[in-house]
Amino acid sequence: MNERDALRALAADLPHAGDDAAVVDGTVITTDMLHERTDFPAGTTRYTAGWRAVGASLSDVAAMGATARAAVAVYADEAFDRDELTRFVAGAVDVCEAVDAEYVGGDLDEHVEFTTATTAVGGITDAGAVTRDGARPGDALCVTGEWGRSAAALRIFKNDGEGETERANELFRFTPRVADGLALASHATAMMDSSDGLARSCHQLAEASEVGIEIERDAVPVHPAVEGVAEGSTERFELAAHFGEDFELVCAVPEAEVDTVEESCPAGLTRIGTVVKEPEEGGSRVLADGEPLPDRGFTHGDG
Amino acid sequence: MNERDALRALAADLPHAGDDAAVVDGTVITTDMLHERTDFPAGTTRYTAGWRAVGASLSDVAAMGATARAAVAVYADEAFDRDELTRFVAGAVDVCEAVDAEYVGGDLDEHVEFTTATTAVGGITDAGAVTRDGARPGDALCVTGEWGRSAAALRIFKNDGEGETERANELFRFTPRVADGLALASHATAMMDSSDGLARSCHQLAEASEVGIEIERDAVPVHPAVEGVAEGSTERFELAAHFGEDFELVCAVPEAEVDTVEESCPAGLTRIGTVVKEPEEGGSRVLADGEPLPDRGFTHGDG
Repeated sequence: MNERDALRALAADLPHAGDDAAVVDGTVITTDMLHERTDFPAGTTRYTAGWRAVGASLSDVAAMGATARAAVAVYADEAFDRDELTRFVAGAVDVCEAVDAEYVGGDLDEHVEFTTATTAVGGITDAGAVTRDGARPGDALCVTGEWGRSAAALRIFKNDGEGETERANELFRFTPRVADGLALASHATAMMDSSDGLARSCHQLAEASEVGIEIERDAVPVHPAVEGVAEGSTERFELAAHFGEDFELVCAVPEAEVDTVEESCPAGLTRIGTVVKEPEEGGSRVLADGEPLPDRGFTHGDG
Repeated sequence: MNERDALRALAADLPHAGDDAAVVDGTVITTDMLHERTDFPAGTTRYTAGWRAVGASLSDVAAMGATARAAVAVYADEAFDRDELTRFVAGAVDVCEAVDAEYVGGDLDEHVEFTTATTAVGGITDAGAVTRDGARPGDALCVTGEWGRSAAALRIFKNDGEGETERANELFRFTPRVADGLALASHATAMMDSSDGLARSCHQLAEASEVGIEIERDAVPVHPAVEGVAEGSTERFELAAHFGEDFELVCAVPEAEVDTVEESCPAGLTRIGTVVKEPEEGGSRVLADGEPLPDRGFTHGDG
């Protein structure tokens, strides 16, 4: 069973498991695990690791349209180096400060591989929690920020030698879209973050909402860093739409409200397509320029 | 740097890091990581692992005198087996139900070793959070439940063959002392859970409160399962006081309130000693029957 099937199996057992975060009595809770082999390429500093790991959980809070309140982390490694630990905590503290949350510590564990498990807690506002299942045909399909940032970082890490490791670390330290999520909370009919990439996120949102989605390739805002590492529009779109781990928000917004909410999103909001009726049996749920957009992205279980 | 020194280093950076859980706006948050090699001996079922891992975090909530609200877990393994995952979740759900909390899911991760990271969230009551630093000379030193349960389980797991693995699993599935913690919240001057064992917990509580502690060895309530695996009173005390991972509560209670609060603790409350003045420089903080009780227990970093 790969990770995706296992997540589906879990969702069958737990009512809250299908969304970015669970909601209990107005409190949002979400947890993630990242580790060296799959998530922190050589060159990633501990400061960036702390920022990114805690940021991933804060991004899930953002995707619910909630305020970010606090985060904790488990730091596990073969041995504990005081400087590395201090830098990890500094990254965790700084990403929390970037979204007005408080980093409140965690736990340590000896482990065979550098591993971190992070949990963020947030609060639902009067606008309520935004889940993935409310998109309606006619809504605009919108995204925050610019895409392909993590893919670009990974390529730079891999080609290291060029001395751009610090640039790759910067790209890896994204700002969780908490402010944007709060602005969107009273407008978006469905929302999620893009941990698995734009293509997969569109499929997940369409499936949860029982709708179809049609996007335009050229409308997807591509991060400038992608230009430097990808040749041609096909490769740029591949990195922006399929790689994943960008931690931007993907949401459906009623057409008439797009302009209003766009002004309130600090990361910028771009309309990249439209929510349409659910396709007939056998039809593709998500089309890009009229062609099926494969439900393909970055999944630990299958590559 | 071993785990204990690293935790001390962390505590210097974060004001909340010295207690069992962090408190933010009346919400208690705590996180832990457990993994196969060090925490789940051969024979531990996935149901027990789910119960115990989530229970460890709920125990930290209990130690703050808070209500337990919800828990999440990351389940990481080399591959995902549907039955194992289902059993893990069942254990997590059941331990939450045992303390009126809700298990709300989590995340999956592919990892080289079966690893779980759990987080529990709770709420501070009108009685306030109970920290480790308020014990005063003259208070009674009390503990909940019976001790040595996890040590006995481990010995049974190791001698397996005897077909008592199910018994060891039962012993491993402790009830987090949330009800007891709530009963104690308005009485205890200091409280913590005993993840590192009774001896070490006494040292930690004494150090945080800047006091000394004197206990009587014979007063420590030993779990009946210890009788079957330990020979003589010295070995029994070793398992009950030093092994750790019993997840009972250790607390200081004003002498006059012990009888009242004892009646409200479902797990039972036993007075095992007295809080005394801080010892002179060089003196032992914790005495058992008048002899220094070594600050020794179960620590991942040094044994």
